[in-house]
Amino acid sequence: MRLLVINPNTTASMTAKIATTAKSVAAAGTEIIAVQPEMGPVSIEGFYDEAFCVPGLIGEILKAQNIQGIVLACFDDTGLDAARCATEVPVIGIGEAAYHFASMVSNKFGVVTTLSRSVPALEHNLMKYGLATRCAGVRASDIPVLDLEVEGSDARQRISEEIKRSIEQDRSEAIVLGCAGMTDLAQSLSDEHKVPVLDGVACAVKLVESMASLGIKNSKIGGYAKPSKKPYSGIMQNYSPTE
Amino acid sequence: MRLLVINPNTTASMTAKIATTAKSVAAAGTEIIAVQPEMGPVSIEGFYDEAFCVPGLIGEILKAQNIQGIVLACFDDTGLDAARCATEVPVIGIGEAAYHFASMVSNKFGVVTTLSRSVPALEHNLMKYGLATRCAGVRASDIPVLDLEVEGSDARQRISEEIKRSIEQDRSEAIVLGCAGMTDLAQSLSDEHKVPVLDGVACAVKLVESMASLGIKNSKIGGYAKPSKKPYSGIMQNYSPTE
Amino acid sequence: MRLLVINPNTTASMTAKIATTAKSVAAAGTEIIAVQPEMGPVSIEGFYDEAFCVPGLIGEILKAQNIQGIVLACFDDTGLDAARCATEVPVIGIGEAAYHFASMVSNKFGVVTTLSRSVPALEHNLMKYGLATRCAGVRASDIPVLDLEVEGSDARQRISEEIKRSIEQDRSEAIVLGCAGMTDLAQSLSDEHKVPVLDGVACAVKLVESMASLGIKNSKIGGYAKPSKKPYSGIMQNYSPTE
Amino acid sequence: MRLLVINPNTTASMTAKIATTAKSVAAAGTEIIAVQPEMGPVSIEGFYDEAFCVPGLIGEILKAQNIQGIVLACFDDTGLDAARCATEVPVIGIGEAAYHFASMVSNKFGVVTTLSRSVPALEHNLMKYGLATRCAGVRASDIPVLDLEVEGSDARQRISEEIKRSIEQDRSEAIVLGCAGMTDLAQSLSDEHKVPVLDGVACAVKLVESMASLGIKNSKIGGYAKPSKKPYSGIMQNYSPTE
Amino acid sequence: MRLLVINPNTTASMTAKIATTAKSVAAAGTEIIAVQPEMGPVSIEGFYDEAFCVPGLIGEILKAQNIQGIVLACFDDTGLDAARCATEVPVIGIGEAAYHFASMVSNKFGVVTTLSRSVPALEHNLMKYGLATRCAGVRASDIPVLDLEVEGSDARQRISEEIKRSIEQDRSEAIVLGCAGMTDLAQSLSDEHKVPVLDGVACAVKLVESMASLGIKNSKIGGYAKPSKKPYSGIMQNYSPTE
Amino acid sequence: MRLLVINPNTTASMTAKIATTAKSVAAAGTEIIAVQPEMGPVSIEGFYDEAFCVPGLIGEILKAQNIQGIVLACFDDTGLDAARCATEVPVIGIGEAAYHFASMVSNKFGVVTTLSRSVPALEHNLMKYGLATRCAGVRASDIPVLDLEVEGSDARQRISEEIKRSIEQDRSEAIVLGCAGMTDLAQSLSDEHKVPVLDGVACAVKLVESMASLGIKNSKIGGYAKPSKKPYSGIMQNYSPTE
Repeated sequence: MRLLVINPNTTASMTAKIATTAKSVAAAGTEIIAVQPEMGPVSIEGFYDEAFCVPGLIGEILKAQNIQGIVLACFDDTGLDAARCATEVPVIGIGEAAYHFASMVSNKFGVVTTLSRSVPALEHNLMKYGLATRCAGVRASDIPVLDLEVEGSDARQRISEEIKRSIEQDRSEAIVLGCAGMTDLAQSLSDEHKVPVLDGVACAVKLVESMASLGIKNSKIGGYAKPSKKPYSGIMQNYSPTE
Repeated sequence: MRLLVINPNTTASMTAKIATTAKSVAAAGTEIIAVQPEMGPVSIEGFYDEAFCVPGLIGEILKAQNIQGIVLACFDDTGLDAARCATEVPVIGIGEAAYHFASMVSNKFGVVTTLSRSVPALEHNLMKYGLATRCAGVRASDIPVLDLEVEGSDARQRISEEIKRSIEQDRSEAIVLGCAGMTDLAQSLSDEHKVPVLDGVACAVKLVESMASLGIKNSKIGGYAKPSKKPYSGIMQNYSPTE
Repeated sequence: MRLLVINPNTTASMTAKIATTAKSVAAAGTEIIAVQPEMGPVSIEGFYDEAFCVPGLIGEILKAQNIQGIVLACFDDTGLDAARCATEVPVIGIGEAAYHFASMVSNKFGVVTTLSRSVPALEHNLMKYGLATRCAGVRASDIPVLDLEVEGSDARQRISEEIKRSIEQDRSEAIVLGCAGMTDLAQSLSDEHKVPVLDGVACAVKLVESMASLGIKNSKIGGYAKPSKKPYSGIMQNYSPTE
Repeated sequence: MRLLVINPNTTASMTAKIATTAKSVAAAGTEIIAVQPEMGPVSIEGFYDEAFCVPGLIGEILKAQNIQGIVLACFDDTGLDAARCATEVPVIGIGEAAYHFASMVSNKFGVVTTLSRSVPALEHNLMKYGLATRCAGVRASDIPVLDLEVEGSDARQRISEEIKRSIEQDRSEAIVLGCAGMTDLAQSLSDEHKVPVLDGVACAVKLVESMASLGIKNSKIGGYAKPSKKPYSGIMQNYSPTE
Repeated sequence: MRLLVINPNTTASMTAKIATTAKSVAAAGTEIIAVQPEMGPVSIEGFYDEAFCVPGLIGEILKAQNIQGIVLACFDDTGLDAARCATEVPVIGIGEAAYHFASMVSNKFGVVTTLSRSVPALEHNLMKYGLATRCAGVRASDIPVLDLEVEGSDARQRISEEIKRSIEQDRSEAIVLGCAGMTDLAQSLSDEHKVPVLDGVACAVKLVESMASLGIKNSKIGGYAKPSKKPYSGIMQNYSPTE
Repeated sequence: MRLLVINPNTTASMTAKIATTAKSVAAAGTEIIAVQPEMGPVSIEGFYDEAFCVPGLIGEILKAQNIQGIVLACFDDTGLDAARCATEVPVIGIGEAAYHFASMVSNKFGVVTTLSRSVPALEHNLMKYGLATRCAGVRASDIPVLDLEVEGSDARQRISEEIKRSIEQDRSEAIVLGCAGMTDLAQSLSDEHKVPVLDGVACAVKLVESMASLGIKNSKIGGYAKPSKKPYSGIMQNYSPTE
């Protein structure tokens, strides 16, 4: 089985970190192809950056050959609905993957993300997925995404402090880490706080692997139907839906 | 006052039709600048097309000079959140405009849109806006967007039939027309069915004109904060947030 | 265009203050007729006072001649549904107007009102309108309504403090002022807190002006249908629905 | 124990019918005082009529001496919140009483009311009470309220037909009769349809009797606090809150 | 009238305390039969204990002769749905009884229960009943259930402190006591805090007495239909549904 | 890895069918231990049967040695919360597994189950999980559970007809099969209807296998905390929580 793991931003060190996690959790026969778009933002922090990563992200899907499933490795689940229109293989966002897992090991989960500007986008997603009622609260640690890539930053400490507040003040029974760049911290934070701490990259790889192994595909009626053929113009022309 | 009305697709005849409505409802001192993106889909029918119209749409906002408000004239309200990050002036989508107006003249409103593939995107928006509880149902007339531009099609008839069903079966007290391309049909359909039939283009122009005249701007804290400076690469580089 | 702006309480200084705002925001050709009922409470603070202002408020509507829209200038939107039954022209409450505007310039808005006894009525309205999910919280400043009319009171200071708490503790991105008597404070509070601070009087005047200019009327089927003819007795007899 | 049962409309035959039910279900030591307002509508059919019955209804409460509880016998629960401000004794609306009982004997209940114009008011109440999720649907039988007082009308037959539809099409497991004027039909309709058919008059009398016997009163903090002293003018002056 | 009051745990002193309350509030002609199961947990603290009290609880229902209604006197309303399948007479849980009463004397009520491990089960119930929107919050006092049976414990003091927080911080207008073992504290806590403090045992006895006197039974279509005949094996065989 | 798959009813042919599916989807290194309780109902059809299968089901968990995850193979997810208290390893119900998968491959999914008496229990679960907003409707095929075990019954045909209605009338984009006994039908029904048709047994096995491989456990704070030590009496004594 070949799975495409797309880091929707263009920072290679994050792609590498994501790939490391993905490969470490994949089953024996699963090949992980980790990519990043050819164009777009170096990091995704809120609605504006989200908008400009999607064409490149879809571009990676259109180029991919012989894959059985796709992981979108940005916690905002950017481009998820469009991606499902572009392919029949299962496409899972790391945000949704972590939320779904968290809601099956706890009564209420908390989310700890990077910047407060990203919180509304996450809250929209939780409402769209139906899981807002399961979430005890989304907390921002006020760490810019790329600071997670900097050795020696105090990022882990600040994330840990917000986890403590989420458990004590919000009554969270499990924690979801709200950025792909936190993928390497889940285990140690779970050990520290004695609750499940979920990393979306790992959860999404296992979900898409599960769906692919079961032969489950995206629905192609309704909202995820194949886009009808039409011309796109300008720099978007290569993405035009074709029969 | 100068208002920018963006048709997010690239079909000039739709831009012209939207401009006609916008100019006809604008106040005496309001100048309407109607544009369409330089790139992207000829029509927007569901999640996939939505994704590829946003960069061009934001591009029009970045180029605009001396405007006091913006209307996004696609009923999916595509790119609305990103657009609000890109500017301080009020930005109103024609979908939200019509929903808000409808919820102030009826207890429940119905929506009649084009294709069934677009329905989930509209339902997401209604939930995000909070107005899902005010909506009696979204009905698809199964008319492709560009058929609305074709003289002699049976589009009006099919829309009228769905309006009838919405009133009788869903107990709608008002109707929202679910596509910018229906902007010229609102008055005659209202006369025919004896209920308010709302066109988002007209509603949005008046809303953004109202906000601009009151000096109301988008919040620039939280989710609509100015994007932090960062490089975008490839064909997206011109959209990079700058200080 | 002639708009009727009804202050539902009987305090003339509040009617004057509301009229000042309404006239300052109205378009060139819009005439504002500001009135107050002949009977009822001097101020409206909660469910009990609400009940006794409605007949007088409806009375003003029944007396009005040649108007194209109506603003109900009590933040509780008292009598809104009954008023819509009494007329075909659009009727907008200042509470709903401000909530709808706030939800189009922010992801979440906070409300700062007068007394805590009024909070449940506002929460009912937010739920009825569908906008409860958009509201970060309703805060009481514990200022009686008529203290807003007293020169030299600390009302503005206490309102400002609650706005600060709403932004910091509730994560509000915009603020709605929860009383018609605060209409003169919106601009300076917005300047102070650097977020949109919305006054319902201004928002409602522009909304009803917009609807009137577009020819949008209340639905007259379902809940807002013309009341069926029937006799009312006693001091209510003048309000009997007639054919 | 003395209970005040207020028919909020001015039709004496309905007051008599309500009194008959109330007395038939009251406990041995319970005295029923059934009254109607001195002023207001002959029947209550939607938002407009509701507005004009409340002052008279509150007037009955203010006049009452030595009562231990109050039933508001209009299915719209008109004036309920204002009434709770006016007294410490428990006040129960027949709508809420029936909804609460129905939600304890079924998973989902249906409502069959009179005119379709009344449906939105009932839906608002269900949402306010929290019980909208328990209601399978509100159906109108299109019978004017006072036709229920007419011998030989086909009212019972039409109500029975809607009950059948509610059970079969909406999957209701119990039925709530949506008008005080239907109080005499509950038993025979329950026998006919083999499901609980609930009459709000009976339910409310037992609820308020229960609360009174337990010494349960309305909360007097927050929304139901005693109204603050203030003058009312004109024909409302007799209702002014006093210290 | 004979009512069966089942304490779902096996602690006789709690059964006695419940019986005392039940008898003190029952009407003159009402006989209270208070029982406890022959098997199961000594106290019910969360999901695990709940599971093991249900067969014994249903066993008491199956054994009962000539009863007109049933109270389940565990605040988790354990086994409520199964119990309603087992009988036609009304079955009321003390949790739901108190929630329903509280929502008719306040705009929002708070709940003060025993252990934090029980909170999710109560929140599930509130959501199922529809009343979650009426609840200002469930607070745990961290008192094990059986400590309520211990003379001289600080249980009352800790409950009182949580009530104070619920009123001040959560804006509760009434309080629901979240354990059958608190039944003897309601009156004094209401006197102390000047808000309604509701004990589910008393509320449930009056509700079931009311329903029984009105001839209201559980619906026997849909979810509460009589279980279809089938064999149960092992120690469950005595509970097999029979024709 | 060893996974325990519990059929909560006592019908061995269903356990065998479930085991066949579980083994066919399990990864190479996963051992499936399929069991059924020693006591309880032969099939689970609604609330009553549910109550009597839980002790036996928990008994299987308490007996199990050296397992890394548990599947509860009844579509009602009976005993799920209690099971999570009884163990640290992940416990997944087949209902929730299928709902979560379906919500990641469609915008709305439909459920087709056995008897209408089971529908309310499924609707409770959907609300508890948060996924009710994602479900287009639960349909009953009116097939008793054990008829699914009968060769030559028309069960498959009736299920297929309900799937068709769910797609056409409810706008479902994917289908969830609502009974463990339908596990062998998923593939052929998906082929027939051209939409994803999800079998909870397969989904749950992959989910619990995924969680186990990632080292994800149930939260042991809050609602799923280890039950506190206490004696159980009678036939329940073997299930007493111990230190």
